Amino acid sequence: MSVQSLFNPRSIALVGATDKSGWSISTLVNLRTHGFSGPVHLVNPRGGVVHGAPAFRSLTGIPTPVDLAYVMVPTAAVLGVLREGAKLGIRCYVVLTAGFGEAGEEGVRLESEISAFAMENGLTILGPNGNGYINAASSVTPYGLPIPSPLLRGAVGVVLQSGALASSVLSFAQARNVGISLLTSMGNEAVVTVTDVIDYLVDDPATKVISLFLETIRNPAEFSRVARRALEAGKPIVALKIGRSRLASHTAQAHTGALVGDDDVIDAALRQLGVIRVRSLEDLIITAGLLASYGPLPGRRIGVVTPSGGASEIIADRAEDEGLELPPFAPETVERLAEIVPSFGTVQNPLDVTGYVLIDRTLLGRALEVVTADPGIDLVMLLSEPPRVAPPDPSPVFALYAASAQRIAASPVPVVVVSNVLTDVTEFGRQVQEETGFPYVVGGIEHGLHAIAAAIRWSESRTRTLTTHLEAPAATPTNKPPHPTQTQPLTNAEPPEPTRRGVRAAPLASDARPETTRHGVWAEHRASALLASAGLPVVPSAMVREESEAVTAADRFGYPVVLKLAAEGLGHKSDIGGVRLGLSGPEEVRAAYQDLTALAASLPTDPAHTTPPPAELPPSDSPSDTATSIAGILVQPQRSGGVELLVGIVRDPAWGLTLAVGLGGVWVEVLRDTALRVLPVDATEVRTAFSELRGAALLNGARGGEPVDLDAVAEVIARIATFAETLGDDLESLEINPLLAQGSHVEALDALVTWHPRNP
Amino acid sequence: MSVQSLFNPRSIALVGATDKSGWSISTLVNLRTHGFSGPVHLVNPRGGVVHGAPAFRSLTGIPTPVDLAYVMVPTAAVLGVLREGAKLGIRCYVVLTAGFGEAGEEGVRLESEISAFAMENGLTILGPNGNGYINAASSVTPYGLPIPSPLLRGAVGVVLQSGALASSVLSFAQARNVGISLLTSMGNEAVVTVTDVIDYLVDDPATKVISLFLETIRNPAEFSRVARRALEAGKPIVALKIGRSRLASHTAQAHTGALVGDDDVIDAALRQLGVIRVRSLEDLIITAGLLASYGPLPGRRIGVVTPSGGASEIIADRAEDEGLELPPFAPETVERLAEIVPSFGTVQNPLDVTGYVLIDRTLLGRALEVVTADPGIDLVMLLSEPPRVAPPDPSPVFALYAASAQRIAASPVPVVVVSNVLTDVTEFGRQVQEETGFPYVVGGIEHGLHAIAAAIRWSESRTRTLTTHLEAPAATPTNKPPHPTQTQPLTNAEPPEPTRRGVRAAPLASDARPETTRHGVWAEHRASALLASAGLPVVPSAMVREESEAVTAADRFGYPVVLKLAAEGLGHKSDIGGVRLGLSGPEEVRAAYQDLTALAASLPTDPAHTTPPPAELPPSDSPSDTATSIAGILVQPQRSGGVELLVGIVRDPAWGLTLAVGLGGVWVEVLRDTALRVLPVDATEVRTAFSELRGAALLNGARGGEPVDLDAVAEVIARIATFAETLGDDLESLEINPLLAQGSHVEALDALVTWHPRNP
Repeated sequence: MSVQSLFNPRSIALVGATDKSGWSISTLVNLRTHGFSGPVHLVNPRGGVVHGAPAFRSLTGIPTPVDLAYVMVPTAAVLGVLREGAKLGIRCYVVLTAGFGEAGEEGVRLESEISAFAMENGLTILGPNGNGYINAASSVTPYGLPIPSPLLRGAVGVVLQSGALASSVLSFAQARNVGISLLTSMGNEAVVTVTDVIDYLVDDPATKVISLFLETIRNPAEFSRVARRALEAGKPIVALKIGRSRLASHTAQAHTGALVGDDDVIDAALRQLGVIRVRSLEDLIITAGLLASYGPLPGRRIGVVTPSGGASEIIADRAEDEGLELPPFAPETVERLAEIVPSFGTVQNPLDVTGYVLIDRTLLGRALEVVTADPGIDLVMLLSEPPRVAPPDPSPVFALYAASAQRIAASPVPVVVVSNVLTDVTEFGRQVQEETGFPYVVGGIEHGLHAIAAAIRWSESRTRTLTTHLEAPAATPTNKPPHPTQTQPLTNAEPPEPTRRGVRAAPLASDARPETTRHGVWAEHRASALLASAGLPVVPSAMVREESEAVTAADRFGYPVVLKLAAEGLGHKSDIGGVRLGLSGPEEVRAAYQDLTALAASLPTDPAHTTPPPAELPPSDSPSDTATSIAGILVQPQRSGGVELLVGIVRDPAWGLTLAVGLGGVWVEVLRDTALRVLPVDATEVRTAFSELRGAALLNGARGGEPVDLDAVAEVIARIATFAETLGDDLESLEINPLLAQGSHVEALDALVTWHPRNP
Repeated sequence: MSVQSLFNPRSIALVGATDKSGWSISTLVNLRTHGFSGPVHLVNPRGGVVHGAPAFRSLTGIPTPVDLAYVMVPTAAVLGVLREGAKLGIRCYVVLTAGFGEAGEEGVRLESEISAFAMENGLTILGPNGNGYINAASSVTPYGLPIPSPLLRGAVGVVLQSGALASSVLSFAQARNVGISLLTSMGNEAVVTVTDVIDYLVDDPATKVISLFLETIRNPAEFSRVARRALEAGKPIVALKIGRSRLASHTAQAHTGALVGDDDVIDAALRQLGVIRVRSLEDLIITAGLLASYGPLPGRRIGVVTPSGGASEIIADRAEDEGLELPPFAPETVERLAEIVPSFGTVQNPLDVTGYVLIDRTLLGRALEVVTADPGIDLVMLLSEPPRVAPPDPSPVFALYAASAQRIAASPVPVVVVSNVLTDVTEFGRQVQEETGFPYVVGGIEHGLHAIAAAIRWSESRTRTLTTHLEAPAATPTNKPPHPTQTQPLTNAEPPEPTRRGVRAAPLASDARPETTRHGVWAEHRASALLASAGLPVVPSAMVREESEAVTAADRFGYPVVLKLAAEGLGHKSDIGGVRLGLSGPEEVRAAYQDLTALAASLPTDPAHTTPPPAELPPSDSPSDTATSIAGILVQPQRSGGVELLVGIVRDPAWGLTLAVGLGGVWVEVLRDTALRVLPVDATEVRTAFSELRGAALLNGARGGEPVDLDAVAEVIARIATFAETLGDDLESLEINPLLAQGSHVEALDALVTWHPRNP
């Protein structure tokens, strides 16, 4: 929905204006004091004088056209105002009134009436239950709360899913000297949504950076679309998304599901979209201010110039926290600095030019000039800040800051100015900045280095994403294939390839054929066959129903072998003793076969099916859901060595199929060490995911193991992910645990597929 | 050293006063404008008029007694001033002059002259190379940099090992409305040290909280002493200790050494001493301000009252980050709140009373009153803040805040007020707080919850430490036993006990007797015998030098057994194949024995010693240091199951013996998952250390293992630590890897001791 006219009206009516309402007073004061040049009409059903001016009794009474109606009438009267306005051709509305979707069933009903009416009549409505917006760039401020003075105009667009926080955000932005282009208080998003506003800001020439406070991302597909647009347009999105602490598991059975909380998926998705996620309101504004002033930053090698040893050591600590590099200065830089820095100082990065700045006011500037010329750094961080209090004669202060500003402007690399601590930029400080051109000052070392690191990551991810994903063909944001594929035959699937070890994979069990209706849980024998049918590497396997067949298969594979009970409804089959490992000869195979058939006989069986095949699972909501259907015994060669990985693909209810990769065993069970990606992914993205694991060192041969060929593993996992996307909307999860990686040999040793239970 | 007179002079002389120096001007302005009531004498060798007043040519010329000389003369002249002053009976000095210890060899020499002179003459000197101090409580401000106005008096004492940061700290404290009792800029600490000032602040009635900015802790023993005093006095210490990013390993050979950086030890020590370590200047002041206003906090169950849904969700996220609890309200609280909160709101913790606070100004206060009465919470966090700008008629604002202040004062539990974002408390805000008694406002949710959590941890650690360590007999801070114990016989050591498995430990090898001179590296056969000699549980072991002896020993232990090459100089013996595991019968033992002796024969041997015993290691700096001395073959029963722990005790050069505990294997090698404690420790402390491990769940039986009896393990480790402390100053490290824990059975399976090489 286009919100261009919503944010740029030439005339405004305040409907429900009354002297008794603080909102009404504030809205009118805001429009009058922040430069709105068009007519503002007051509407009150009783007419009379409101806010010192005559009020119209209805919208109809207004003789000239109204572009925007700002609605403050009681809940029950809102729809009537919209009807009247629609009749008059008023297309744009802000509805401040509460009592809708946030207030129980009746409110939800009223809100859907409004949405429906808006849809039918092409109305653009911001709210209800929002305070309106502040279009500082265009001096249009229909906003129901006091706006702290001065309202600073600038390049940061702010979209808030919380009305109450807007005042804090405005105060803090003002304190940091960060100017706003547009601020919106979204309210219930009955019609206009966060993504509509982001779309507008991407196109808005006044906006360079977009700041979001999000309680929920209602439409991930739309959000992904506008986030990609913003990235392409070179406008960073900085987001404070709350709800980090709420963890929800998606499926009961698939192991990965229990490890993937909603917020972890959101976190992965935001990172993939190049959205900078911050965790505080302070970081939201400080980071946006930095990016609005400096744009993309060229790299992470930082030269630091300070007048304080203590501060430079704090910076060294914080730079390491944030993964930034403070490389040693080049020899010529050291040489030149040695002539500038007093002899009792030390020439190093971070540089402390010493307290002699108090005697020689040019010291810091001269050192800055030398450091900016160092060939090994991408940007300079200068510790400085605007003055707080005006001295009796301020002219030397202005001269000093003007000289600094010139030096900074002349630098061949960006010079990011950071203050020591996070205190407000005072009125005098702002004046000095404005008059001298002294740049934006990032607020304090603590938040400042976080912001610089975030800005650098954004700059890097922008380059990376623009050169890869965005040029990739037709990525579908929700992972949904264009048509329902519930029973889509895998006509393109290749026949199973020989594995790299030269043993052909087992023929597909009849019940694993793609044509089979997909529902319930597919245990290993069906899940692995499905993977093999797509040409994915799976450990060779034979399904047997006779002891002698087991021995024949084992002889064919070579010893040692593994025997597994192939059965649906078992859950983790190793937990009940359904796996026999390390069988080194025919006799051990026979014994294991007997054990497993005895075990199978002891399990509660599904009365609808006598023991072996074909084992067709009952719908998962049937009473026999917990029973077991025995399909036979699987014989597989036993693998040893290598690294066992977990690959899980789970459908997130909001973001669609999500890939989790990790090391197996303790890494998942105790450390929850997995890296997530919303699909689609390519092999490069999977490699990056591995680098995020705490146990990443094990893949490179730590503890004496053979290094894993990460390119080979990533390529297989990317193929698995791509295959999962072809399986249609009914795929709930696909888990391969373990995926064995041994050098460049990669092979699934076990698998489990869960389908949506809705269509038995 | 007592600094009472240093900080409380009745008269001051500024020596080296001159109109040309900013420091001189500032110092005089500071003394005159911040209320110093005694005489201030100016001294300049040229006499004349300085700062508009007549100057004395020397200290000698001043006719009345001088309590403190503030010295700004050139470096070379400082000692002369001290001589003259000492002669006149002036005991206290601040030396601002630089060019001493921080400025190369000559400076170091000059500084030691000053220290020596001060020592001989009983002088108290702050500095050199420091800006002086601000005793706000007593209005004595001999301080060389401008003091931002207004100087707020309060209960926070600040000690800074950085002059340049003092201005930022003062500005930020002022912005947060945090008052200072005393601020000192330490300079080079030639005479008066940080710990001297802390000692003073512990006794200073004006000080409730001590804030430190530390570049180095020069004297850990002294620091420990004053930190304990502060804890006993109930005065929290909050410290920003920099140098987190500098990691140093202590010893090359002992495994633990490579994992323990200096800063990790400092971190452990500070925690053990109840010092709150923060990582930013903002947190330093915000946390100190909180503790100065509220004192100890009674618990971590927090009731949250806000006027904003968005803010309350940010708080929920941050509370989880910080390990704080937001328990559900009691039913009676919910019932009472339901009558107050508008129907469209939700009654829950954290509570959002909704934007109706703008209509009903009593809403927040009434809700607060209900929540403070909830029986299940320890304290309430109220989201509020002082006003920023004075309205035309400020009296309703004063009335509103006065009413809130009364409600807060009447609460049965502490009410901590936190603002939404970190902006300055304005002049008007401060005035409102002062006149209405509205309490300290913690600066922003982000820093605020960090500060609250830190204050709660301090309160908990205070209770814990006061009831345990401080009452424990004679804890020696540096772990140094009272007398040198290099060759101290272990006269109190018990003879080896039978292990719990009923097999007696091997008799001590002759070369492991305590009388043996201790140097170099003791491999397993000597290290384990040393532990066994102290009655610590060690796996039974037999040292053999004949194949038949090996079989006899194995038969005695029962199979399976382990054979290990017992040799000095091997490093990690398993790396060269010196360990044979899982030997299940006499034949396998014979074969392993032959293998190991063949291996021994192939190793470079120490020419000074023919193969077996006694293997006396050469001094580690001798050229034959890398050679191997074969002592024989160790036979041990093989253990299986259980959890393998790492116990390392390493001497930190500053803090003395430090214990590292962790799980073995990947946990140490890949995850560096160890918890540290500076000795002494008791079993309770060791248990707490285990709870800090990321792999802690494994000890409780995760992944199907038997839960470890943590009390039993902690008790053994505490005994090992206590034993290590008896081994004297030459102990560099003692590593037990692994210590096997199986239920309540605990046993050292391997050990390594490293002695200081200095005394061969």
